[in-house]
Amino acid sequence: MLPFKSLTSSKQLTPEIIDQLFVVIDQMAASIESKGRIDLLDDKVVALLFFEPSSRTMMSFQSAAQRLKAGMVFAQNASNTSFEKGESLEDLIRMVEAYSDIIVMRHAQQGSADIAANISKVPFINAGDGGNEHPTQALIDAYTIHKEKGRLDSLNIVFGFDSLQSRSIHSLSRLLSQYVGNRFTFIGPKELEPNEQLLAELRASGTECLIADQVQLHDGYDVAYVNRLQEERFENREIFEENRRKYRLTKPDVENSGCLILDPLPRIDEICTEVDELENAVYFKQASYGVPVRMALLAMLLGKA
Amino acid sequence: MLPFKSLTSSKQLTPEIIDQLFVVIDQMAASIESKGRIDLLDDKVVALLFFEPSSRTMMSFQSAAQRLKAGMVFAQNASNTSFEKGESLEDLIRMVEAYSDIIVMRHAQQGSADIAANISKVPFINAGDGGNEHPTQALIDAYTIHKEKGRLDSLNIVFGFDSLQSRSIHSLSRLLSQYVGNRFTFIGPKELEPNEQLLAELRASGTECLIADQVQLHDGYDVAYVNRLQEERFENREIFEENRRKYRLTKPDVENSGCLILDPLPRIDEICTEVDELENAVYFKQASYGVPVRMALLAMLLGKA
Amino acid sequence: MLPFKSLTSSKQLTPEIIDQLFVVIDQMAASIESKGRIDLLDDKVVALLFFEPSSRTMMSFQSAAQRLKAGMVFAQNASNTSFEKGESLEDLIRMVEAYSDIIVMRHAQQGSADIAANISKVPFINAGDGGNEHPTQALIDAYTIHKEKGRLDSLNIVFGFDSLQSRSIHSLSRLLSQYVGNRFTFIGPKELEPNEQLLAELRASGTECLIADQVQLHDGYDVAYVNRLQEERFENREIFEENRRKYRLTKPDVENSGCLILDPLPRIDEICTEVDELENAVYFKQASYGVPVRMALLAMLLGKA
Repeated sequence: MLPFKSLTSSKQLTPEIIDQLFVVIDQMAASIESKGRIDLLDDKVVALLFFEPSSRTMMSFQSAAQRLKAGMVFAQNASNTSFEKGESLEDLIRMVEAYSDIIVMRHAQQGSADIAANISKVPFINAGDGGNEHPTQALIDAYTIHKEKGRLDSLNIVFGFDSLQSRSIHSLSRLLSQYVGNRFTFIGPKELEPNEQLLAELRASGTECLIADQVQLHDGYDVAYVNRLQEERFENREIFEENRRKYRLTKPDVENSGCLILDPLPRIDEICTEVDELENAVYFKQASYGVPVRMALLAMLLGKA
Repeated sequence: MLPFKSLTSSKQLTPEIIDQLFVVIDQMAASIESKGRIDLLDDKVVALLFFEPSSRTMMSFQSAAQRLKAGMVFAQNASNTSFEKGESLEDLIRMVEAYSDIIVMRHAQQGSADIAANISKVPFINAGDGGNEHPTQALIDAYTIHKEKGRLDSLNIVFGFDSLQSRSIHSLSRLLSQYVGNRFTFIGPKELEPNEQLLAELRASGTECLIADQVQLHDGYDVAYVNRLQEERFENREIFEENRRKYRLTKPDVENSGCLILDPLPRIDEICTEVDELENAVYFKQASYGVPVRMALLAMLLGKA
Repeated sequence: MLPFKSLTSSKQLTPEIIDQLFVVIDQMAASIESKGRIDLLDDKVVALLFFEPSSRTMMSFQSAAQRLKAGMVFAQNASNTSFEKGESLEDLIRMVEAYSDIIVMRHAQQGSADIAANISKVPFINAGDGGNEHPTQALIDAYTIHKEKGRLDSLNIVFGFDSLQSRSIHSLSRLLSQYVGNRFTFIGPKELEPNEQLLAELRASGTECLIADQVQLHDGYDVAYVNRLQEERFENREIFEENRRKYRLTKPDVENSGCLILDPLPRIDEICTEVDELENAVYFKQASYGVPVRMALLAMLLGKA
């Protein structure tokens, strides 16, 4: 049993809770392997509200619900922040809670997850609220690292290349800052360094945080967590292209480094495709863990695991 | 068993049939409570065709189908009235009937439900056809009133605030006009009074119909059924804003009035949020009844209840 | 068992394989009739990726998956060729294969099906890739002809009216060219004759191919396979309208001809609605066979039939 009804922030994912979750995630992964689908949520209905385009997270949650044989109600609305112009999010949630046993929501507005979780009578999962939080992604990332490295502490981790805006980097760095002995090095263009508030928060937890332009993964790094650069963040196309060429992992960068490569995907060109075949390139494995991770969360929040 | 194959109009919902339906709706509500989902439509496939945006009705039907473990095929198309420019609705239905055991359709075009029901070999449910009919909403409304007041006759009912265009008001007033002793008072802006044809029809059934600018809910009203005003219906923004301020239920209007407040939702600002906590504010309960009501209709039209 | 993991082209559908498939399709049609839905794919998840609008094929695959009680994950994206600008189709497939046990994809880009099938670890079905191939439609068409005529050889077949661009005509003519004794007559506007490459390919297989302006269906034709003309293919509206009036099957054209009328639908006005009631007008039957045909393909590619 989880000590909360709803998951809105990676701050809720303490080491103790993560230990509990990992046990259930392993069970879920094993059940996919051996049975394909299980009856665990056969008597439940999951509402999936995707008010921002997100095929990846959406399909991963769909798959999790289907592997548990839950019923699904589904709404997708890319253009509006709510169902009907002028309707409040509170009213919307009060309606959807009557149609389902648990609500999963992706919403463009920062803070919308807390509003929804507070009003909802049924459990609620934040599947991303603007630039704020994406706790299920952080859990997938942590699970991947633990699976491959056997631990979440004493890790030498590189975050790049856009540490300013990536909610995945924010969420994962916060989660890992709860473990002792981790060291974070944020690399990327000057414009996209993490903000002072995040750095202060991470350092307050005792985590060593460095800022660098570039690093060599062969210099003892355990994990590199990277994401794509976005053109609109740069002064002009030329500067963007220059940074794009600079911040791109190649095969020589990665090969024999012993450094695990993670990427929340989609990958644009921050990692060369030639890297894909390397053993330490685990981003597609990472994506696949989305299903058992979300199965575990759905099951535990519904009191079934 | 219902004496019709398809439901297109609230005129089909006679008092006798409503009595039958209420028994099954109660059973469905109890099954949600005790079992979450039941196998009743496990061997059926429900087609949901939503050619007009309607997340509310759509999710409610999805939930009903999933609570009965029916399979679902689903098409949503906000921009077109049909699947392909030039294809007839008749051809479309002949195709969808081959993919499913029952068809639920929302369509922007008035009268489309009758065309579809006539051609379809499988049962058909009208989930709203333009400004014409929305019989499943009327059934939800009637069920809510009956649940709270214990009767559908001898009621003193206020309808507002747009009685001209609301298919929900048209459908519910027609349904209730079949019961004896009801009195309807239509309130709202002059521009949005019910049309003469509807009034004539309701009066012909023996129902007393009044038109008023405003009423006090404390003056012995049993039910107030209200919906939102829409700006495009007014000459200019100023007149709209004036009416909007005027036709808005506040806590003092509602508190201790004994008058049940219903709203087909979405609520924009026709009811102040401070009203929500009052016992006689039943609009979210009303929304929740959408699931058992639609379960009952799906099950009965498929001969399973 | 099928001798391939994925279906991307009608060229894979040899007479021997078609014989095997027809047996399973008949079983699936019988199971719909007798049981509605069966548990065959109860432990599987089907991914439906529709990156091009296609309600018809989409609903037919949904119905097939639901009749087999498979789980479904679903993504629809009309405007993009991929999920995220810049993401490769390869990356997308590597992600979706982790969410499902089989992938069905409709994609605007010619050749995309082969790319996807090559990368995918799970079985893959091409549900239409640009103007290239639509093998499941060809199988439906062949099944319809076989059901009605009892054979796929020695047939005198008319194809019209746009043989240049119709992937359905391309796929079906290729499939039928593997059988002996068939004769194809392509009719339609001069602008829309089949291209030389297709004709050469069909003739190389030993199939007699003729080009004609018009034919009389009463002159010994067994099958007429027709589709709609599209205005954008003609020099001006006048020429389009002229051709439209000319290439339209009427009741006198069809009645008592003994010629089977097929149309992949949607029908615009290439067949007058008065033809619908004739026994040899089988296009709605043809559409209905989409469900058992796709059930058979899903089941066989997943090793369950």
